[in-house]
Amino acid sequence: MKVKFTKMHGAGNDYIYVNTLRYPIADPRRAAIEWSRPHTGIGSDGLVLIGASSVADFSMRIFNADGSEAMMCGNASRCIGKYLYERGLTDKTEIRLETLSGVKTLHLHVSPQRQVDAVTVDMGVPTLIRRVELGAGYPFGEGIALSMGNPHLVIFVDDAESVDLPGVGPLLEHHPLFPHRVNVEFAQVTGDAEIRMRVWERGSGITQACGTGACATAVAAAFTHRSPRRSAVRMDGGTLLIHWSEADGTVRMTGPAVSVFDGEISLPG
Amino acid sequence: MKVKFTKMHGAGNDYIYVNTLRYPIADPRRAAIEWSRPHTGIGSDGLVLIGASSVADFSMRIFNADGSEAMMCGNASRCIGKYLYERGLTDKTEIRLETLSGVKTLHLHVSPQRQVDAVTVDMGVPTLIRRVELGAGYPFGEGIALSMGNPHLVIFVDDAESVDLPGVGPLLEHHPLFPHRVNVEFAQVTGDAEIRMRVWERGSGITQACGTGACATAVAAAFTHRSPRRSAVRMDGGTLLIHWSEADGTVRMTGPAVSVFDGEISLPG
Repeated sequence: MKVKFTKMHGAGNDYIYVNTLRYPIADPRRAAIEWSRPHTGIGSDGLVLIGASSVADFSMRIFNADGSEAMMCGNASRCIGKYLYERGLTDKTEIRLETLSGVKTLHLHVSPQRQVDAVTVDMGVPTLIRRVELGAGYPFGEGIALSMGNPHLVIFVDDAESVDLPGVGPLLEHHPLFPHRVNVEFAQVTGDAEIRMRVWERGSGITQACGTGACATAVAAAFTHRSPRRSAVRMDGGTLLIHWSEADGTVRMTGPAVSVFDGEISLPG
Repeated sequence: MKVKFTKMHGAGNDYIYVNTLRYPIADPRRAAIEWSRPHTGIGSDGLVLIGASSVADFSMRIFNADGSEAMMCGNASRCIGKYLYERGLTDKTEIRLETLSGVKTLHLHVSPQRQVDAVTVDMGVPTLIRRVELGAGYPFGEGIALSMGNPHLVIFVDDAESVDLPGVGPLLEHHPLFPHRVNVEFAQVTGDAEIRMRVWERGSGITQACGTGACATAVAAAFTHRSPRRSAVRMDGGTLLIHWSEADGTVRMTGPAVSVFDGEISLPG
């Protein structure tokens, strides 16, 4: 059986998107692993399944390139907003999306040509924000840990470019403080409301950008008074605007979504 | 304008294939660069254009991921054989293909289900085979240089796995002996007619496999009496069977070709 898919990216964070209302995927873990491979697969950071929901307008499930399931991904949420609107699956510009981290709201920024140029995602209220000591044997003394639905560890550094991501990423991902592993962000404050960030994603390793990671970084910077509550987080794949609302404690993330190509592939078999 | 394409791989060497009889590509260099990118493009080792020919059945042009044009690629030739036959563009099982290195003949191995399982490619007669001294400042003393339509430098090593490809590949690719740069193969004879090889491709860097590189390696091994004239060359992406004919001096390469998926993408613009 052939499955139609769309490759999309949000700030360079690319996933394979499948509408499971038309193409159900029985074994998404295996499909994510095989299809995410470069050279012999489609090549991607993972697989996103768009489906029906009984509690929201649509549902989203995300499987990383290693087959593990992600709780939530802001970059993927923005792409789903673009996908649903531009393909006529909805005409709403405010879409409620069920994720493993709860229901998230997408606000679409639609051009006069009815293209979705950017999407603001309600990323929820960060929880469990605390300073953590990493302990002996780690190349960094401390970090800010928090949950954006998924766990993050933000480490502020003087020079983000010089961080040896492949070396320290896996070490910190498996730090004993985080029994379910953790996403790690290396952040450098580069301006008044501007942060440079490089990410090591749990289950995926180095990626071009991470939406929840950008939120975690902006929150950690505001929490430690390194930046105001509105800031721009610059990653390799692009820049996201983050607003941690003082009024309701919610984090809102705004950024682009891009459709790269449409394709058709056989189920792994 | 949307262009239909197919992603195929031969021994893990993956290209984007476009039938230019239906979808002409005005600026193939730019398309190769943009489409070959992971994350924001399709992701591939390059772009292959299938077209008409006045001297053969079809023509092939290959553009590497950096936009440079390749003379010839055996892995791509095999994929073209599969593409042409399985899509009904020809019913021949022997196809003449025009390349920048001259006209090559493809012999298709067709299953009873009319699937092309493997293809033997006439890779022409190797020329300019000679031992070269690399000189001071290089981590290897000597190599075998030859042309398989494109230039190759084969270096025999005791342990191919331990070669630091990203370190020594660029250094040798730009060796002054090769003003047009060179493809570099690191080869270890692992059995009677079995060679393990890792490749650094001119313009592409590390790839899973290189068809002309496998031929160059087998020829260099036979030339230096390290192996017989029929041998198997094992690369990361798979194994190719090479036969350097004593009768006519031609090299024939046999290996698989795989269709990964079909897609549709906008021209860069």
